[in-house]
Amino acid sequence: MTTNNVKSLSSIADAIPIWSSLTQDQQRKLLGTAREQRFLKGTVVHEGGLECTGLLVVRTGQLRAFITSADGREISLYRLLERDICLFSAACMIRSIRFNISIEAENDTDLWIVPAEIYQEVMKKSVQLANFTNELMAERMSDVMWLMEQILWESMDRRLAEYLLEQSSLQGTTQITTTHEQIARDLGTAREVVTRMLKYFKSEGLIALSRGKIEILDERALDAR
Amino acid sequence: MTTNNVKSLSSIADAIPIWSSLTQDQQRKLLGTAREQRFLKGTVVHEGGLECTGLLVVRTGQLRAFITSADGREISLYRLLERDICLFSAACMIRSIRFNISIEAENDTDLWIVPAEIYQEVMKKSVQLANFTNELMAERMSDVMWLMEQILWESMDRRLAEYLLEQSSLQGTTQITTTHEQIARDLGTAREVVTRMLKYFKSEGLIALSRGKIEILDERALDAR
Repeated sequence: MTTNNVKSLSSIADAIPIWSSLTQDQQRKLLGTAREQRFLKGTVVHEGGLECTGLLVVRTGQLRAFITSADGREISLYRLLERDICLFSAACMIRSIRFNISIEAENDTDLWIVPAEIYQEVMKKSVQLANFTNELMAERMSDVMWLMEQILWESMDRRLAEYLLEQSSLQGTTQITTTHEQIARDLGTAREVVTRMLKYFKSEGLIALSRGKIEILDERALDAR
Repeated sequence: MTTNNVKSLSSIADAIPIWSSLTQDQQRKLLGTAREQRFLKGTVVHEGGLECTGLLVVRTGQLRAFITSADGREISLYRLLERDICLFSAACMIRSIRFNISIEAENDTDLWIVPAEIYQEVMKKSVQLANFTNELMAERMSDVMWLMEQILWESMDRRLAEYLLEQSSLQGTTQITTTHEQIARDLGTAREVVTRMLKYFKSEGLIALSRGKIEILDERALDAR
């Protein structure tokens, strides 16, 4: 996950593939206003809400984007690595963005922060930067759609396999004590879905089922799901 | 939900606020290649997958955008009404879009369909159209984020209350005919969650429960949840 072995970017120009299409004036503006800042592992870089931190360009390190519920639960939306750009920390520059995302540094992270109004100013003039921004947004929306499909109905088999391995590790035994109801609650799905998938795993010889117990028979095959 | 009482758009120009910033040539291209098509209520306009139906501009009527799971379940993402533009039926024009959305007509709907390659061609030249497209995407992404937050952790009690009131209004009676399974499916949650919340509502004197029926006893209190 660390990027220490990769040569770090020397300027935000390296993170914007259409850089050479910008005028010298536009390039100067972006370079001249971007400030460099280091965030230590675990620091909150941007807190959802109306503040406009600016556009984040990852020089080294790793960011996690997440949303938080009213009662403090979180879910991770996506990660940003070296050369990635975070648009939603500058949500103020796109009127139609009506959601709040928080960002934290998962490793020590060096960022360039471009003021939202400067980026917006250039984006309103440069068709290349506007189209690049479009791609950035589509990229993040694709991440979110994927996550939603995962949560809703994607590959329950893998999620269940991971869950069983984790429980086995937590309980320190291959004989997990649990119920289908409990698993369904933990995975945010219906009991019927869990029961069906467990039966399928059983038919594949991955597990054995008995009252209140699930025994892992083939850890390796389960891990490969 | 119908828009029959509103004067319908006379051309796609009316749906694109930055129209006047386009060159005559760009305008001609968009107008000349857009074809008008009527879809009857219930028709599938665009099926997720790699096909590129084109950009849809709603002249009259109503579209529903949804995603489908491998086993055939659906969830509605957002609705498009008169003057709205559907970008994701032309997903091929933005490389980073890696998800599939299906679209159906919820009412009889008149559309203009703009070929994706024509829209893309203009968008690559017009900074205004590129920025407008950015706003369109941010709008839809905001819809999806809202839905995800609803699904993940928004107060299930309020959603269920709203659902019951809506069903009562649709069925024209305070004695709703339904099952816990049906409600769970419609709300995208587990049956247990629904059963538990219904029992809570019952204990609060809001509803009465009997086999296959839910009777609303206190509409006002339900509405206030």
